[in-house]
Amino acid sequence: MNNKRFMRRAITKAKEGIRRGQTPFGACIVKNGLVIASAHNGVWADTDILAHAEMRAIRLACKKLRSVDLSGCVIYSTCEPCPMCFSACHWAKISKIVYGARIADAKELGFSELVISNADMKRLGGSRIKLKGGFLKAECLELFRAWDRLEDKRAY
Amino acid sequence: MNNKRFMRRAITKAKEGIRRGQTPFGACIVKNGLVIASAHNGVWADTDILAHAEMRAIRLACKKLRSVDLSGCVIYSTCEPCPMCFSACHWAKISKIVYGARIADAKELGFSELVISNADMKRLGGSRIKLKGGFLKAECLELFRAWDRLEDKRAY
Repeated sequence: MNNKRFMRRAITKAKEGIRRGQTPFGACIVKNGLVIASAHNGVWADTDILAHAEMRAIRLACKKLRSVDLSGCVIYSTCEPCPMCFSACHWAKISKIVYGARIADAKELGFSELVISNADMKRLGGSRIKLKGGFLKAECLELFRAWDRLEDKRAY
Repeated sequence: MNNKRFMRRAITKAKEGIRRGQTPFGACIVKNGLVIASAHNGVWADTDILAHAEMRAIRLACKKLRSVDLSGCVIYSTCEPCPMCFSACHWAKISKIVYGARIADAKELGFSELVISNADMKRLGGSRIKLKGGFLKAECLELFRAWDRLEDKRAY
């Protein structure tokens, strides 16, 4: 139930990003049932290749909690975090990642993804982070289709 | 020759960071023989778990070049970039990573590193980024020892 609410918050942020000329990704960080931070991708808006939705949400959460330790937090992401974002979640000690679409789906849109799944990153790196994929996947993939229909879309 | 000069710039930044209570990592980004950006780790200073030296240098370079495309740039890092930073270099289309110490060396200091080497990340993700490891390694490891001697050091 709550899972759906939090993922839909991430989806709403992604839609907001699409309207603002950004790429179709959103994320939301939750602790003890409360939303701590949410963000859409801002690579173009910030001229910052690091400004993925998950990264912006993690930075906001660190500021809000005044800590670099996000233990006990769950991150909801409309797309499986790329290896950069997965590793950021690990560094932040986030407890669980819940995602919708897969990295491979994003690559099909033209993004130069390193296609290493979160499951592989977790296994190879020995991370204890929990993973749940394919959550509200159809709604998350719809974000990709909406963005892909735009004439002035820009991948990176 | 220049390689040494640029790595020593990264080492100087790392030393500056250590003096400021930060962790012992530095990075320097160079394009066409010119230093575009350099930074030390700022996780504690910024209360930002993402503020690794490489990440801060990449963000600065994007601002300076007004572009998220750092093609043709080389990054010098006192330590092998963690999977987050490696992936950030890939996203930024950085051409080459030159590093000193290894991720495994940093893990020994107490950092919760995902020990996946840059060579493995490159192979698994199909990245075209060039790699050169072990460069001025003794000087880079000395940074680790200097930091490790501090009584008030804090890993994450």
